[in-house]
Amino acid sequence: MILFNNDYSEGAHPRVLQKLAETNLEQTEGYGADRYCRQAAELIKARCRRPDADVHFLVGGTQTNLTVISACLRPHQGVIAADTGHISTHESGAIEATGHKVLALPGDGGKLTAAQIEAVVKAHYQDAAREHTVQPKLVYISNPTELGTIYTKQELTDIHRVCRDSGLILYMDGARLGFALTADGNDLDLPAIADLCDVFYIGGTKNGALFGEALVITNPALKEDFRYIIKQKGGLLAKGRLLGLQFIALFEEDIYFETARQANRLAGIIKNACLRKGYELLVDAPTNQQFPILPDRVLEKLGEHYGYTWWQRVDKDRSAVRFCTGWATKPEDVEKLAEDILRL
Amino acid sequence: MILFNNDYSEGAHPRVLQKLAETNLEQTEGYGADRYCRQAAELIKARCRRPDADVHFLVGGTQTNLTVISACLRPHQGVIAADTGHISTHESGAIEATGHKVLALPGDGGKLTAAQIEAVVKAHYQDAAREHTVQPKLVYISNPTELGTIYTKQELTDIHRVCRDSGLILYMDGARLGFALTADGNDLDLPAIADLCDVFYIGGTKNGALFGEALVITNPALKEDFRYIIKQKGGLLAKGRLLGLQFIALFEEDIYFETARQANRLAGIIKNACLRKGYELLVDAPTNQQFPILPDRVLEKLGEHYGYTWWQRVDKDRSAVRFCTGWATKPEDVEKLAEDILRL
Amino acid sequence: MILFNNDYSEGAHPRVLQKLAETNLEQTEGYGADRYCRQAAELIKARCRRPDADVHFLVGGTQTNLTVISACLRPHQGVIAADTGHISTHESGAIEATGHKVLALPGDGGKLTAAQIEAVVKAHYQDAAREHTVQPKLVYISNPTELGTIYTKQELTDIHRVCRDSGLILYMDGARLGFALTADGNDLDLPAIADLCDVFYIGGTKNGALFGEALVITNPALKEDFRYIIKQKGGLLAKGRLLGLQFIALFEEDIYFETARQANRLAGIIKNACLRKGYELLVDAPTNQQFPILPDRVLEKLGEHYGYTWWQRVDKDRSAVRFCTGWATKPEDVEKLAEDILRL
Amino acid sequence: MILFNNDYSEGAHPRVLQKLAETNLEQTEGYGADRYCRQAAELIKARCRRPDADVHFLVGGTQTNLTVISACLRPHQGVIAADTGHISTHESGAIEATGHKVLALPGDGGKLTAAQIEAVVKAHYQDAAREHTVQPKLVYISNPTELGTIYTKQELTDIHRVCRDSGLILYMDGARLGFALTADGNDLDLPAIADLCDVFYIGGTKNGALFGEALVITNPALKEDFRYIIKQKGGLLAKGRLLGLQFIALFEEDIYFETARQANRLAGIIKNACLRKGYELLVDAPTNQQFPILPDRVLEKLGEHYGYTWWQRVDKDRSAVRFCTGWATKPEDVEKLAEDILRL
Repeated sequence: MILFNNDYSEGAHPRVLQKLAETNLEQTEGYGADRYCRQAAELIKARCRRPDADVHFLVGGTQTNLTVISACLRPHQGVIAADTGHISTHESGAIEATGHKVLALPGDGGKLTAAQIEAVVKAHYQDAAREHTVQPKLVYISNPTELGTIYTKQELTDIHRVCRDSGLILYMDGARLGFALTADGNDLDLPAIADLCDVFYIGGTKNGALFGEALVITNPALKEDFRYIIKQKGGLLAKGRLLGLQFIALFEEDIYFETARQANRLAGIIKNACLRKGYELLVDAPTNQQFPILPDRVLEKLGEHYGYTWWQRVDKDRSAVRFCTGWATKPEDVEKLAEDILRL
Repeated sequence: MILFNNDYSEGAHPRVLQKLAETNLEQTEGYGADRYCRQAAELIKARCRRPDADVHFLVGGTQTNLTVISACLRPHQGVIAADTGHISTHESGAIEATGHKVLALPGDGGKLTAAQIEAVVKAHYQDAAREHTVQPKLVYISNPTELGTIYTKQELTDIHRVCRDSGLILYMDGARLGFALTADGNDLDLPAIADLCDVFYIGGTKNGALFGEALVITNPALKEDFRYIIKQKGGLLAKGRLLGLQFIALFEEDIYFETARQANRLAGIIKNACLRKGYELLVDAPTNQQFPILPDRVLEKLGEHYGYTWWQRVDKDRSAVRFCTGWATKPEDVEKLAEDILRL
Repeated sequence: MILFNNDYSEGAHPRVLQKLAETNLEQTEGYGADRYCRQAAELIKARCRRPDADVHFLVGGTQTNLTVISACLRPHQGVIAADTGHISTHESGAIEATGHKVLALPGDGGKLTAAQIEAVVKAHYQDAAREHTVQPKLVYISNPTELGTIYTKQELTDIHRVCRDSGLILYMDGARLGFALTADGNDLDLPAIADLCDVFYIGGTKNGALFGEALVITNPALKEDFRYIIKQKGGLLAKGRLLGLQFIALFEEDIYFETARQANRLAGIIKNACLRKGYELLVDAPTNQQFPILPDRVLEKLGEHYGYTWWQRVDKDRSAVRFCTGWATKPEDVEKLAEDILRL
Repeated sequence: MILFNNDYSEGAHPRVLQKLAETNLEQTEGYGADRYCRQAAELIKARCRRPDADVHFLVGGTQTNLTVISACLRPHQGVIAADTGHISTHESGAIEATGHKVLALPGDGGKLTAAQIEAVVKAHYQDAAREHTVQPKLVYISNPTELGTIYTKQELTDIHRVCRDSGLILYMDGARLGFALTADGNDLDLPAIADLCDVFYIGGTKNGALFGEALVITNPALKEDFRYIIKQKGGLLAKGRLLGLQFIALFEEDIYFETARQANRLAGIIKNACLRKGYELLVDAPTNQQFPILPDRVLEKLGEHYGYTWWQRVDKDRSAVRFCTGWATKPEDVEKLAEDILRL
């Protein structure tokens, strides 16, 4: 059985384990105040060309999302997000548990547009009884989205402009950011994202780390007392250096981007097999997540040898599913899957 | 510089790293639904002689505390804890952030007594206007406490009885449980704790794991939907197997208890050096944390070669500090420290 | 200027003021423990034919909604509501501020159907990763709805059955309940509602009281410690008797229903004038709120003499607005409005 | 039976009822946007000599406290309060339910000192691990306190200075403010309080209104979006004018202060009777609440004709109780009580 269910089925890239082993008996300060976290933060700030940024390391994505949103908002403020956004659907109400409403808008392949956001804000401030409704204050986008699509530089610039003009905070969930930045058609890079977003994170868990997300705060107004909030939400890892070490492993050379590029390439092989066979795609995505629409009888057959994630029923005979590649995906396994798709 | 500041200055016990390396490329299900988490849970249930218990693995202590307390209480209910309890002091208001008051009682060397708890509950229910006050519903104790002291079986049985008679939930924070259960004078074991507490955790972070706490729920009323709450609070690790693997490493043989026993022994050497030198102790603790009261000029000298945690000022010339040993503490370092204490 | 903006533009029915004046210098216990609250509760329980119910009096609707929902749910549970429901739109995120997600479904004229609710619940429990999503646990309906429509006995019975079968709590917001129960086409009454809902409230603010909502809890599982939650949320009125006295005034004779019936009749006159003139209705409602779609130029003219609430733009020339009648609406004012609608 | 249990046993001062009756059929805008709320706000701003202040009207004290505190703080921040403060003891955890810890300090007759506050803040910022603890950010004081004592201008100025120097917000709970400002020994007035506090409220419920508290915000940084928070917490009264009207009744002439002065005078008669009889006081208070320590057998006798609030056991034969006077207390009832105290 070969699992294509997700990008966190294996442990970590060998360089990550090696770093942990090499430094295992060293003594360091706790809670992220150690030299490795500092070094990793410097690496990331250099990549973003933002020496002024604050970098924090957290263990997981839901934790990062709820910590950022809770830190940024006053009680009456809410988050604009796509209806397919992770915080809208798959975090068990984590954002609401911190007191804030998620204002879900219909996504286009998982993406929001500047025009949508502008319309929501305008409607809010035109309402004479606006204090009876939740005030939109933060925009949450994922890049790539939960459907594998990516934002172009123009799209992100437009969203940035609306946010700036309306006093909204722009937050990018980069749980799979490596896959976006190495995708065909991408024209964004870390410095551009650091300029256009107030805060964003570079995901490690889904791209080669055992766990870990590197949060980058560029808006000075959002930096104050951030470590208190991380601690309060249970996200301050005692042996914080484990996070720093992993990001050093991924970023001191180019592992983070190399593995992502390779995973995108392998995902493309699966996509092409589906297209050649005449299967439609739920959404046309250039990254490591592919959402083909397959006949149920084919899925049953494939399910004997391959793991995938069932996504949604499309019609009575067909379902959309997700195939996911990652840093550990073996090219030969992908070739075999592609052949079986074409054959069945 | 040798650090005695805490028990989480190093990485992990070599067996832990070895387990992670051996299994690194295996594919498993995410979020703790994998075979290693199941195996670790079985090991722990066997140790507790409670095949009916539910075992969940979380990353850290604050996260575990806020998740358990939030899962157990209705909005108007609060937590009884010692004023030195971790949730009372060092979690940045994590419990309050989930909506619940911590009802802090003066601890005796960090410990609560059954009589104290009984008095609080009685006072609450005798108050005609009790609905204007927070209802005590859960008792939080740490074993060992934040001051290194431990509960005897009789003390825990008494607390258990008050809780049972008053409808209170008894929760033990076992962040350093291994040190308690291997301390001189201890007469508790895992099966006794599992019988006397409704829910408790076995801490990994401070005793040889990279990170991780094993939560054991024995009260059936507290089991329902627990994974939803873990997820909502950001505590459901994507690569959950990392937690299972670490607890297998610590519990399949007896590493968890062996390392704790050794750390207690080494801490005893530090304690004895202080006592021989005529220094008082802030509290007489049998575990890996020692709180001697030292002259400031001695502390300054010691500080040139050893790390410790400053605790509190005792008088104008003396302070209480904490020396902490752990799984990675080298006996020769302890001997050197003891000699320097005696010499200075 | 005559205001038809809402049903809370005036003070209170004269009987209410008279009761307050008559008893003004009497001394009573505070916080609702007085004889008048007891008497009012008995009156309401008798009307509901539920001597076993618990009745609590609160000041306002948002407060009642957030108190009930917060009292009923565990942290990971959410509320199913229509997208036009008051809690979905006009409570500034009050429900989310207590930690719970509102799972908004598209309403049909403001109403939910049993089939919709069943589908949501079924989808939740069929999801293998359901703990990553909010668990639906309470159904919130308004009767009449925010669009003036009402539930039939059959519709409510169907929703009740789905809730009972799925372990959901059914909560009816009766901010304007009097108008529903006296509307043309209504076949529900208080005993039926008390049987079919777990908890509901009878609104006073919008039907003749200065303020006040009478909450009726019939499900025994929801009664425990409810007064603690009212107090915690700031809803326990010090001079609680003011609430009891007002409900006595409205319910000892039949004022509550008589004024509502009259307001419905007057609203019908406005509706008929619109229909006769050929104007469409946004929704066909039998209660005191009417939502005609009028040309903007007519609205402008009407706005010189009458207050109404702008609701939504329908097309470039027309808007839906709300005209509202109430206990204090004068028949001659309605006649005048109707004439002007026909004339303009 | 004559009740001296509290100052909210009766309805409202006749002027209040008269105002409500006179305006009953007028139509006004809802939610406090009406002319009466504007007029009342102007009256209060004039009394405070602060035309720049924002004034909001809320229904009750707990609601006001939780709304203010929730509006002012970020998630990791807490409130310094006396251990006898209303928010520390008698609000069912209302503050914690909004996510914030109450940092309770031992009060001196219910009062905090500038030195205490300064010490807490200093200790917090000297702690290298401060982000593991709750950040003190707001100081809550009551004037008069829950024990009837009052702050002098010097004391309040000292607290103000510490707050200003440390970036703390100073909030005064004035549930019984009239009694403080008319007490013997008082040298504060509304303009001084408005200058020294960032936000405070003038309580109506306990001094002649049916209900209602007038919140005055003088710190511009705390004004933004305040009405959203009132609405979210359930405190925005639909018929908001009822609040405005009541404060007009109390403040357009001098009823608010006249009734309070009279109540203080009557309370002094009770106090003097106790002192003449040789009974001690729990605390020496110059306002309408008196806390004598009486023999239990005397209390039993008094209890046959007078209501009082039991406060605390002092020794095996004596208890402290509270006698409270108010706007409606009859001088002849107080004389009778005083005689009985002297006689028994």
